[in-house]
Amino acid sequence: MRSAYHEQLQALTSQLGEMCGLAGKAMECATQALLQADLVLAEQVISDHDQIATMSARAEEAAFVLLALQAPVAGDLRAVVSSIQIVADVDRMGALALHVAKIARRRHPQHALPEEVNGYFAEMGRVAVELGNAAQEALESRDPDKAARIQEEDDAMDDLHRHLFTVLMDRDWKHGVTAAVDVTLLSRFYERFADHAVEVARRVIFQVTGVYPTEEVVPTPR
Amino acid sequence: MRSAYHEQLQALTSQLGEMCGLAGKAMECATQALLQADLVLAEQVISDHDQIATMSARAEEAAFVLLALQAPVAGDLRAVVSSIQIVADVDRMGALALHVAKIARRRHPQHALPEEVNGYFAEMGRVAVELGNAAQEALESRDPDKAARIQEEDDAMDDLHRHLFTVLMDRDWKHGVTAAVDVTLLSRFYERFADHAVEVARRVIFQVTGVYPTEEVVPTPR
Repeated sequence: MRSAYHEQLQALTSQLGEMCGLAGKAMECATQALLQADLVLAEQVISDHDQIATMSARAEEAAFVLLALQAPVAGDLRAVVSSIQIVADVDRMGALALHVAKIARRRHPQHALPEEVNGYFAEMGRVAVELGNAAQEALESRDPDKAARIQEEDDAMDDLHRHLFTVLMDRDWKHGVTAAVDVTLLSRFYERFADHAVEVARRVIFQVTGVYPTEEVVPTPR
Repeated sequence: MRSAYHEQLQALTSQLGEMCGLAGKAMECATQALLQADLVLAEQVISDHDQIATMSARAEEAAFVLLALQAPVAGDLRAVVSSIQIVADVDRMGALALHVAKIARRRHPQHALPEEVNGYFAEMGRVAVELGNAAQEALESRDPDKAARIQEEDDAMDDLHRHLFTVLMDRDWKHGVTAAVDVTLLSRFYERFADHAVEVARRVIFQVTGVYPTEEVVPTPR
């Protein structure tokens, strides 16, 4: 039984990792759609979202079946419980990419973003992909040191988020309130995406070490 | 064993319900702090947040212990797994109240909100308390019809959120970009608070009926 259990848990972990990678790619495409006012790409992200949602439901069910049929204990139980919690985070990462794509679609054929902030969002998109990949790697390697390094990318995202707010609050902001509202929401979506990736890494660290990492890996709320 | 199990599950459910009520109250106080630029009240919400965070950690641990010691099956297992997922939602409701309080604190002694939108936020605060109470009632009664009625309050919150955006996007918005950014984030926090309350109710419905409610109880993303 233990061996079947570990195989199934491994399959579940791989699936969660794959979802993290997909969420990162969805955010990358959503970012492109946003920067280029690309409606086709925005629609693509929106229709692809079903895939992540379906994978979430399946992963949740797989975790449930593992609990029901294998009744794991101790560390093994901890691992399945973490998986259930991780599903919710990854699912949310996918939803945030969807939100970005929807703003791109809503503003089409206009650009949602004033050109002045394109650079920030290009960079946020790049960091989001790295976060998706780092969360996937943390899940698959179960290496707490690797998992802890996700903090660097989260710090980068927080810096971008903070800088963007400085740009917004500047008296010289010339792009009106609608653009300011879009930039505020979009920036928040990327920041939350990063927070969820960090949360996945924290859960991995907890699975492996039995304790949650302290402050430095706690997401910074704005 | 079954009876001890059900007592412990009942205690866990009560604790989750209590947390929903507390999160609603935290949002009520945060709203007051916001509307009255009341720093003492904002600080109170911020320091009280530890209580919800501690209760979350305890509820998560209680659910884990139930799984470990009682190895529940079928519907009983479903109930504990749902509890683990509900903890995350309620924890987030508390964090969103904290975010509102932090914006009130950041802008003190100024008011974060232009007077023009006070009415919307007073109403959002009122709906948030109702959502907290409705989620608590859904948990405690395990009545799927009651749980489904939370949708009405969520619709009310979505309406307020949408109206606020209309006010923001109006050419006559005279309060500058900083206020627009604050209003955007704040409105989003209340809307997310409502989404999480709806999610708690959906989990209750799933626990009792074995199926998730369809579209009409799915949170509406902006």
